[in-house]
Amino acid sequence: MAKNIPTKIYLSEEELPRQWYNLRADMKEQHDPFLHPGTLAPIKLEELCGIFIEELSKQELNFTDRYIDIPESVCNFYRMIRPSPLIRAYFLEKILGTPAEIYYKFEGTNTSGSHKLNSAIAQAYYAKEQGLNSITTETGAGQWGTALAMACSFYGLDVDIFMVKGSADQKPDRLEVMKTYGASVTPSPSNKTEIGKRIQQEKPGTTGSLGCAISEAIEVCASRESCKYVLGSVLDYVLLHQSIIGIELKTACEKYDIKPDIIIGCAGGGSNLGGLIGPYMGDKIRGKNNIKFIAVEPKSCPSFTRGKYAYDFGDTGKITPLLKMYTLGNGFIPSPIHAGGLRYHGMSPILSKLYHDGYLEAVAVGQKSVFDAASMFSKCEGILPAPESSHAIKIAIDEALKCKESGEKKTIIFGLTGTGYFDMSAYRMYNAGKMEDTELSDEDLQKGFSSIPDIPQNR
Amino acid sequence: MAKNIPTKIYLSEEELPRQWYNLRADMKEQHDPFLHPGTLAPIKLEELCGIFIEELSKQELNFTDRYIDIPESVCNFYRMIRPSPLIRAYFLEKILGTPAEIYYKFEGTNTSGSHKLNSAIAQAYYAKEQGLNSITTETGAGQWGTALAMACSFYGLDVDIFMVKGSADQKPDRLEVMKTYGASVTPSPSNKTEIGKRIQQEKPGTTGSLGCAISEAIEVCASRESCKYVLGSVLDYVLLHQSIIGIELKTACEKYDIKPDIIIGCAGGGSNLGGLIGPYMGDKIRGKNNIKFIAVEPKSCPSFTRGKYAYDFGDTGKITPLLKMYTLGNGFIPSPIHAGGLRYHGMSPILSKLYHDGYLEAVAVGQKSVFDAASMFSKCEGILPAPESSHAIKIAIDEALKCKESGEKKTIIFGLTGTGYFDMSAYRMYNAGKMEDTELSDEDLQKGFSSIPDIPQNR
Repeated sequence: MAKNIPTKIYLSEEELPRQWYNLRADMKEQHDPFLHPGTLAPIKLEELCGIFIEELSKQELNFTDRYIDIPESVCNFYRMIRPSPLIRAYFLEKILGTPAEIYYKFEGTNTSGSHKLNSAIAQAYYAKEQGLNSITTETGAGQWGTALAMACSFYGLDVDIFMVKGSADQKPDRLEVMKTYGASVTPSPSNKTEIGKRIQQEKPGTTGSLGCAISEAIEVCASRESCKYVLGSVLDYVLLHQSIIGIELKTACEKYDIKPDIIIGCAGGGSNLGGLIGPYMGDKIRGKNNIKFIAVEPKSCPSFTRGKYAYDFGDTGKITPLLKMYTLGNGFIPSPIHAGGLRYHGMSPILSKLYHDGYLEAVAVGQKSVFDAASMFSKCEGILPAPESSHAIKIAIDEALKCKESGEKKTIIFGLTGTGYFDMSAYRMYNAGKMEDTELSDEDLQKGFSSIPDIPQNR
Repeated sequence: MAKNIPTKIYLSEEELPRQWYNLRADMKEQHDPFLHPGTLAPIKLEELCGIFIEELSKQELNFTDRYIDIPESVCNFYRMIRPSPLIRAYFLEKILGTPAEIYYKFEGTNTSGSHKLNSAIAQAYYAKEQGLNSITTETGAGQWGTALAMACSFYGLDVDIFMVKGSADQKPDRLEVMKTYGASVTPSPSNKTEIGKRIQQEKPGTTGSLGCAISEAIEVCASRESCKYVLGSVLDYVLLHQSIIGIELKTACEKYDIKPDIIIGCAGGGSNLGGLIGPYMGDKIRGKNNIKFIAVEPKSCPSFTRGKYAYDFGDTGKITPLLKMYTLGNGFIPSPIHAGGLRYHGMSPILSKLYHDGYLEAVAVGQKSVFDAASMFSKCEGILPAPESSHAIKIAIDEALKCKESGEKKTIIFGLTGTGYFDMSAYRMYNAGKMEDTELSDEDLQKGFSSIPDIPQNR
């Protein structure tokens, strides 16, 4: 049992990881390969490099190296924004009256406000190393866009960001932060691309979706010299970079003899969850622990809990490679809830495989209950959480209350991915009592499924 | 010379201070006593207790105890929000090409976004201990209001906040954070008070001032049972609480053999600066160092550099005790610059005395140059600074550039009091090239001076 735990555990600079952890090297079975959208054959490195940065494409296809060196320049940047603290939620425990020990790994202390900067800085670094002039990307809630704007500013790289229109409207200040870091930001769908124009024609007044913004970013990228497209979640290489969260977590836990029973994270595209649980999941696969891992998603966008495990496109325009993943269909456009970062139709192929094979559990929660948890947490723990992160808080509280009933003294850890400072329009609605749970109807679910391509699923 | 300095220095929980440092105990001369506004006699404890919380009134009049115990409950809260990191600005040094070593003590990682929470939690604790039902206060930029809202929420106390109207209009999201923590917030001047109504009549369309908001908060407080008024800066007890910044700073510096040559802080009411420099200033007074301390203020509100050292009221309504301080006059209403936290007509009596006696230097800077510094800093150090804090950045950069010219390897430390996440309207103006320096005209200066009461100044 853990003893004498400080409220905040900070690793020293010497303890910071110098390598990322590649979970795939420890998986007994790999997820099915990405397919070329034209030939439906497994995609080759040179094909991936057509869209993606070369070194990242290599990382994407590297299933064997357990550890991958973090470039020195990225390590230096990490020293500026990391370590993130592992915080013992003493006050939350007290208010809940639970015998459980609750901890959270807090990634929101940097200016981007979330864990996204961990991967953004690596991607900008590799883009610079490859001699690119610019990169393009999409952003939902805006955390990824902010992180990439900061990273590109650091390395002197131009970046074009397509921001889901609903989010851009809700968060003009978030958009202004990206501009402050020199990024060019376009609400999506826009008139800058063919796919953007088409989607606006098909769905007049649409508030957009990540799938659609991805299509626009790729289209613009393809039209330019010395430009590549980057992604802030879903792909294996993003989970690789985010493993720094999990490595720090495990180092801190081992230092203080903390033995997690449950680890919880919110899941949109899966980058935070994959990074958070990575090293402990590797141990579980090798029979070294029996930790319960829980992915939490919104009821309005329940990829794990109501999606299909199938090959699907990563974007609405159907131009990305096909990924085998839990998906609601590339044409699915979720209702405009406030956790914009969780509004993606698909899910990380690595996490999808782990969920499919029973290593990972998932649960979907309603928006109102998420904000109830966020409000309680903000008052006792002193941090105003992002709506996305609050999904994990909600389930951590539920698990702690189960311990209260059973009397079990479990150790619960969750990922607090970021802060809600740019989500005050959501809090305003909640404070005014206007927040409602939005659940996906069977009809909309089937409509989304109808966009999943009809190709042979077993390969 | 300091060696092997990590980018971020975090003290361990055991190293966190358990006592505040009372700088006055080491001062050779004290500032002149506060005067009762009616009798003009030095104010007595029981008179102070009429407006202020009892324990805080005692601290205000305690000139002799060098150290004062931090209550256990406040220590526990500090463990949640502190330590704040001392950061080596390696990237800023590199971009400037300076031989100087630059460090900053960053107080912006907590949800209130600034150092204000250090004193807010203490004040809410003492209010609760005294059995009060509610407290009232004012807030300028909103950092103090947010901090107090969080602190009162933690202790289950009602709080009424009068927020300078100009700031409330600029920052609706900042206001919403306070509401999220359960505070009642009123833009000032308001129709809730006599003084608010009068000021609106006298100056139709006014965007308000801290001096005016203070008057409203005190008026409402006086009309209630079991209610006291609290203040987030200026007073000696606030500087006492903020000494935790300086104690942590000195502990960290001594641990790594860092010997500061210059310490810089922005100055509005003086709480951050007073807290930051406290322990080192005590040493300087006792002849133990020769550190140069620099207060940085905006050219539009230059209390130190163009103000008078005189007895003046702390508020526009002339109901506070009289304080001997550098002042632009209680009737002075500064132009609505974006560093709302620095728009106070007066200055901490402790800092005023130190400045008067030559222990402290001061410099006033223009708004445009401050945002130039903020923009540069945000890009290389990865933190989007508050406009207030950026005043200190500007002078730190200037001092580092002087070292570049002279070849001196000085050690420069500045206080980065907070983040600018709720100041995006200011950054928007700057990004659009619309930011201008605003300097106080001689005419407005004289107009402000005319509101300083005509009473015998030497006592």
